[in-house]
Amino acid sequence: MGKILDKIITPEEVKKLNNVELEVLAEEIREFLIETVSKTGGHLASNLGVVELTISLFNSFDLEKDKIVWDVGHQCYVHKILTGRKDKFDKLRQYNGLSGFPKRSESKYDTFDTGHSSTSISAALGMARGRDIKKENNNIIAVIGDGALTGGMALEGLNDVGFNKTKLIVVLNDNQMSISHNVGGLSNHLNSLRVEPKYNKFKSTINATLKSNKTGEKIANYISKFKGSIKQFVVPSMLFEDMGLKYIGPIDGHDINMMSKVFNKAKEIDEPVIIHVVTSKGKGYDLAERNPKKYHGVSPFDLESGEALGKSKRNYSKVFGEAISELANEDDKIVAITAAMPDGTGLTDFAKRFPKRFFDVGIAEAHATTFAAGLACSGMKPVFAVYSTFLQRGFDQLVHDVCIQNMPVTFAIDRAGIVGEDGETHQGIFDLSYLSMMPNMTILAPKHLDELKLMLKWALDFNGPVAIRYPKGGDLNTPLKPIQKVKLGQWEEIEDGKGIAIIALGKMVQHSILAKEILKEHNINPKILSATFAKPLDETMLKKLVLQGYDIVTIEDNIINGGFGSYVLMKLNEMGFNKKIKLLGFNNFVPQGSLDILYKKNHLDPEGIAKQILEFK
Amino acid sequence: MGKILDKIITPEEVKKLNNVELEVLAEEIREFLIETVSKTGGHLASNLGVVELTISLFNSFDLEKDKIVWDVGHQCYVHKILTGRKDKFDKLRQYNGLSGFPKRSESKYDTFDTGHSSTSISAALGMARGRDIKKENNNIIAVIGDGALTGGMALEGLNDVGFNKTKLIVVLNDNQMSISHNVGGLSNHLNSLRVEPKYNKFKSTINATLKSNKTGEKIANYISKFKGSIKQFVVPSMLFEDMGLKYIGPIDGHDINMMSKVFNKAKEIDEPVIIHVVTSKGKGYDLAERNPKKYHGVSPFDLESGEALGKSKRNYSKVFGEAISELANEDDKIVAITAAMPDGTGLTDFAKRFPKRFFDVGIAEAHATTFAAGLACSGMKPVFAVYSTFLQRGFDQLVHDVCIQNMPVTFAIDRAGIVGEDGETHQGIFDLSYLSMMPNMTILAPKHLDELKLMLKWALDFNGPVAIRYPKGGDLNTPLKPIQKVKLGQWEEIEDGKGIAIIALGKMVQHSILAKEILKEHNINPKILSATFAKPLDETMLKKLVLQGYDIVTIEDNIINGGFGSYVLMKLNEMGFNKKIKLLGFNNFVPQGSLDILYKKNHLDPEGIAKQILEFK
Repeated sequence: MGKILDKIITPEEVKKLNNVELEVLAEEIREFLIETVSKTGGHLASNLGVVELTISLFNSFDLEKDKIVWDVGHQCYVHKILTGRKDKFDKLRQYNGLSGFPKRSESKYDTFDTGHSSTSISAALGMARGRDIKKENNNIIAVIGDGALTGGMALEGLNDVGFNKTKLIVVLNDNQMSISHNVGGLSNHLNSLRVEPKYNKFKSTINATLKSNKTGEKIANYISKFKGSIKQFVVPSMLFEDMGLKYIGPIDGHDINMMSKVFNKAKEIDEPVIIHVVTSKGKGYDLAERNPKKYHGVSPFDLESGEALGKSKRNYSKVFGEAISELANEDDKIVAITAAMPDGTGLTDFAKRFPKRFFDVGIAEAHATTFAAGLACSGMKPVFAVYSTFLQRGFDQLVHDVCIQNMPVTFAIDRAGIVGEDGETHQGIFDLSYLSMMPNMTILAPKHLDELKLMLKWALDFNGPVAIRYPKGGDLNTPLKPIQKVKLGQWEEIEDGKGIAIIALGKMVQHSILAKEILKEHNINPKILSATFAKPLDETMLKKLVLQGYDIVTIEDNIINGGFGSYVLMKLNEMGFNKKIKLLGFNNFVPQGSLDILYKKNHLDPEGIAKQILEFK
Repeated sequence: MGKILDKIITPEEVKKLNNVELEVLAEEIREFLIETVSKTGGHLASNLGVVELTISLFNSFDLEKDKIVWDVGHQCYVHKILTGRKDKFDKLRQYNGLSGFPKRSESKYDTFDTGHSSTSISAALGMARGRDIKKENNNIIAVIGDGALTGGMALEGLNDVGFNKTKLIVVLNDNQMSISHNVGGLSNHLNSLRVEPKYNKFKSTINATLKSNKTGEKIANYISKFKGSIKQFVVPSMLFEDMGLKYIGPIDGHDINMMSKVFNKAKEIDEPVIIHVVTSKGKGYDLAERNPKKYHGVSPFDLESGEALGKSKRNYSKVFGEAISELANEDDKIVAITAAMPDGTGLTDFAKRFPKRFFDVGIAEAHATTFAAGLACSGMKPVFAVYSTFLQRGFDQLVHDVCIQNMPVTFAIDRAGIVGEDGETHQGIFDLSYLSMMPNMTILAPKHLDELKLMLKWALDFNGPVAIRYPKGGDLNTPLKPIQKVKLGQWEEIEDGKGIAIIALGKMVQHSILAKEILKEHNINPKILSATFAKPLDETMLKKLVLQGYDIVTIEDNIINGGFGSYVLMKLNEMGFNKKIKLLGFNNFVPQGSLDILYKKNHLDPEGIAKQILEFK
């Protein structure tokens, strides 16, 4: 007998299955996910957690007209499997392959591109109000995790939904985690709902009901209570009710039958509804269920042992984590902030050693940024460790609360430059542009792992905002040595040369050293400098280079518009030199793919850099 | 007998006054405010609303160690009056004068610079956690309006506060408005608390108690219930309680005695508390109380009639409002969005005429931006009308939800360039920088009021994100004529000339025309172009200018870093021209002052432009 999964080509076919078949389908999908993701890497635990939820949504809604917006989006694998993309999973998250996130360009069933957290309610509300203006009557469903719900824009969205009673279904997928453990008052509140005796009683009643085989009727009785008195049903959540949404829940997020019934009923409610489903991240894969943080986003790994294939090495996040712990040990004013990424940013050890000086504020980068400014006001030395792409959420706060007041806050910007497989939404290619426009902001970039601690120490002693931006992963194998001393606005001359001076930044210094080897074969021997500071620039050095007749090439793993090279060009122009310089960097959004492929496609690998310099000559 | 107000030099002196004197003080402050602000202009209604609240805070707390963070900050006048700055009010909001917002550089009692909404909880929480690390025991108080509470970062802050029980006092100043009428589920919730019979009963009991003259004791009895059972006291708000904050309220925000008692008690509570006070915006000035929207921020006005001094003229906000209404009349896909600024952005008429296509989402620019993208998904043509400085709050959403997906959303960016008296926090001098770095973003700038409708129509027909940025106020008196047709990336040649070509943007075209008159006296006759598009640039025109030997000067009312001129320079470099060009614009944050003074100080008035060009030659 063939697998049920193999017969599902369109969402409609899910609706034809009976309850038993749906359960079988869930198991088949789970097997498929574990097998596939162990080979390709990807967001395993979150997808294992939403197998039944996704099946239930497909079972209850008509995806030819109803629209599901998956918040964050990395839990969309099941959705993709059930919308005809199962055969593309061997190229998951690869260059030109299947995206690990919803992509409108990939399928008509992907209604909105997501990636960053907390956007789904806003997007879905837009679709719902558009629907109402057109007098159509399809359903719009936002599926959002409990972690994403702490993001400010999700709460702004909820507030707006609750006000004018637009019909919208919000499914709160509560797995009791964001990426790491969840934090915040909301999280405590959800926890109180889950431990409420009524929930457990309800759960066992429903289970008994299902087993008694008179399912339909009895559940119908339960469900019929919804419309009139949802508030009394299961557990009341005044929080959501107070904000103007009908609340239904908590419901077992692995019970397809129950969820399908609830969703069917929710369709009939002509106002905003929030349905609270409780799922287990990593469900069905023992190792993942026991350690969902580890299996949140994985590299290819061994199925039996769960160990990642390929060995881990020293990387910037780890080195940052070691550095801040060592420095904090000697200076009790140092405090660290993360927005729900203690593991990713390397702060786990710090959190253990200095729990009172460690703050995980939830997925809340805007708050985190101003919170850091507040800490600085009280004499602390705050370090906000954050991925480049997520700090975009704190842009206004950087300008308004940090830079205008010239607050001594340090931003440890991880994943600056491209990050690879997560694609457009996660590449950290804008920070040099959005930071260098800000008055009072100082920006550093280590070219070598061992410069990070030095820079962090320097930043903590500096009286103003400092950003240190460093890439994903570790260093390439080059003969580069770390600098020994950081001096405001001073660059480092790494290799002497003739005719051309390459001013590179961070990881691009490593690429430049390798590019030089290739260029030498063409009798070109460029001077290489590391722009230790992206801002302020080393004007003395710039002047010297120009006066000595060097042609200048800047290299950055950032978008060229408004970035480092553009800043160098502007400064040269301001200094009175009209000199053509070559700016290397990204020209557009960068899609998913391995770092190697992406550098190559954008001519920022050593070969590409060499080629561009040859053309420039 | 001298006024009590005249004797208050430090906050401590407020504490020495008895109840009657405090009431008198309130009246004196109110008189002073109305008289002063009628001459200087400023935020009248919000300050009239917090007279008693501020006095009560000063009465209960010790400002030598306790810290008040005023959210938004434009309600800080009473605070400034009571901290020794009364004599500086004649220079309120003027260049080098007293700021209309808290300023750390101005007084030790100003603990955090505010301006944009919703930052106070984050900043105060930072201070509070810093205090706890230092094992100090002062009080930190965030005063936030009900409007500002709908801002996402305030909710992120509340969520964080509620989680770990940091001692913090949040005063919710509920005047039932943000700047315009308030919106959102939270607002409905607050309203339900206010109309709750218990609140009214409580209010009258308290009033009776006060009149009975046995005030102290009876109130003490009421208050003593706080610690044990705040939930039952007055009206329960499960919303805040669910988020982990003790809720006290609502309390009459014009009852000094009652508020002082409550604040005194709140000091003793060792967890986060939210105190809900109800105030009337504009309190005590009849005209302002009846029309608080009008008196939110005022120009100098006549005390009797309330009419503004100096007559209003045609301005960009009004013209935008007329244009969108006219276009919407012919195209029912056009929808408009504001983040709590329907009046300021000129959308009042649209809201009346097309209520189903008008969305005021509250102070929630992040949500608004993604919500617009959602509307675009459903086939609508959304226009988000927003001030340049506030759109900074939607930066990540612009990149992530609008530009990556190339969504046809129009951003009508009002108050681009400097806005004058509101100072650093409100100047719109970053939008050209933060928008031009974004792939897929198109940016226009009208040089003439009558270009705005043309551009809006063009934007609504364009298949991708478009920003139209225009200044505060109207046009200068120049002989400029509007363009007749918008063509993607095409600039307009306005006046021919020799040797120098000025490429100016928006209002700076008007300044350039006037500068040209001055330059002619020096026998310099520049060509003048209007950069109708700030992005994409008119490369054909640029090439022509260079080949014809023109020296190029760019003029923008934006920060130079990463702005328009920097983009032109980059493009010229990319095109292979190494040409020194002169970039005129702002070099730093721009403080408060009249537009005239600020242009002059930054050499962007016609004289300053002429002078800079003369130096360039």
